[in-house]
Amino acid sequence: MEALSFGQYQLIYNAFSFGIAAMLAATLFYWLGLSQIAPKYKLAVIITGLVTFIAGYHYLRIFDSWESAFTVMDGSVELTGVAFNQAYRYVDWLLTVPLLLVELILVMSLTKSETVRKSVTLGGAAALMILLGYPGEVSGGIDGTRFIWGALSMIPFLYIVYSLFVGLSESINSQPGEVRGLINLARWVVVLSWSFYPLVYFLPFVIPMDGGTATVVIEVGYTIADVVAKAFFGVLIFMIAFRKSQSPATA
Amino acid sequence: MEALSFGQYQLIYNAFSFGIAAMLAATLFYWLGLSQIAPKYKLAVIITGLVTFIAGYHYLRIFDSWESAFTVMDGSVELTGVAFNQAYRYVDWLLTVPLLLVELILVMSLTKSETVRKSVTLGGAAALMILLGYPGEVSGGIDGTRFIWGALSMIPFLYIVYSLFVGLSESINSQPGEVRGLINLARWVVVLSWSFYPLVYFLPFVIPMDGGTATVVIEVGYTIADVVAKAFFGVLIFMIAFRKSQSPATA
Repeated sequence: MEALSFGQYQLIYNAFSFGIAAMLAATLFYWLGLSQIAPKYKLAVIITGLVTFIAGYHYLRIFDSWESAFTVMDGSVELTGVAFNQAYRYVDWLLTVPLLLVELILVMSLTKSETVRKSVTLGGAAALMILLGYPGEVSGGIDGTRFIWGALSMIPFLYIVYSLFVGLSESINSQPGEVRGLINLARWVVVLSWSFYPLVYFLPFVIPMDGGTATVVIEVGYTIADVVAKAFFGVLIFMIAFRKSQSPATA
Repeated sequence: MEALSFGQYQLIYNAFSFGIAAMLAATLFYWLGLSQIAPKYKLAVIITGLVTFIAGYHYLRIFDSWESAFTVMDGSVELTGVAFNQAYRYVDWLLTVPLLLVELILVMSLTKSETVRKSVTLGGAAALMILLGYPGEVSGGIDGTRFIWGALSMIPFLYIVYSLFVGLSESINSQPGEVRGLINLARWVVVLSWSFYPLVYFLPFVIPMDGGTATVVIEVGYTIADVVAKAFFGVLIFMIAFRKSQSPATA
């Protein structure tokens, strides 16, 4: 962990607090709205809230870990020697990323066997993607180790993107008209917000930056990506479930 | 308690945090899903959530106890002299392991007398198993005391495994077709995930390892076993209850 300027420290600190507020508020929104959702779609909305609940827990831990890694006094930032725990993000992703795919699959209400099959293959690929990224992230440097693990992690990532675009296309076309656009949007939000993670991961290789700037890019970048991929994506899932619940054909 | 490397300390620390997140999220999932469960199976699902709730509480305590047992500064790990409390696991298991068997028995909806009889004998054997393992675990060494109590604890363990395989076979065959596979899977998850505990307990006898490695194997091993045996097993129980609730024959 590099020393940071006061402004860099504060920016990351506030981004983490924003993460806590956004994730916990989103969780409450989905779960309080459950009474408006038809039984068929309740599990999708419950899982949507689980994702932001787990993320909220981890942002609380990340925030505390960040605070204990620095002493900030009279505008100067010193390292305390306590390590900032990067692993919280990976533990979070290991739990939430497969669940994110499951909530998208559940809200489509496919057949039982298709639901199980897609949940297992996409969820498994997502878990593999996170496990492969972790050794690169904790290696600490912007070097070969980070690059190789990151590159390996892209294989399941590309498989998921491919599955969402090709494999789900047919299922999406069979969705009722009033939600087809929303499901298509949700699919795009997955692909674009998820692309943000490898972008953040690899950016320090592409643009030369000092340690402090790299830390800001990585921490603020991941936080924005998390809020879009979990809280905003969750709102789309909620709206799809809500509209389907109100239509006599799909409720 | 032996001194650990920074990596070993962090791995255990993150495993405990993963335990907290997984147990609490699982609890919320089962309880929020209660509205989708027929009255007959609600108690099974409530107890499923109790198990992960109790485990989540203990993982919060274990996490705090772990933090206060070490000072971590500039990547070096020192013992503070405050003991890490191994007993939390045993208090947890004493409560949760009998409940785990009860949730499996309840979701099968056997006759009233069979439910009571199996709950008492299997639950009692589970409590005895935990009580016998405890003196061996807290003795601290990889020695005769650990071995003897561990061996005694295997007697009720083997009785439970035998009962699940032989005694429950008949009841499982009388379950409706659409859940028979799931109940059979749940039974296997009990046996395989529970086998993990004696494996972890006895592994330091079989493979010579230094104190730090033994601590990692024991703490990370127990955590993985707990998440599988409680949270993942609970998802199976929830799915059995959910499917039975949706079928007109069993709702």
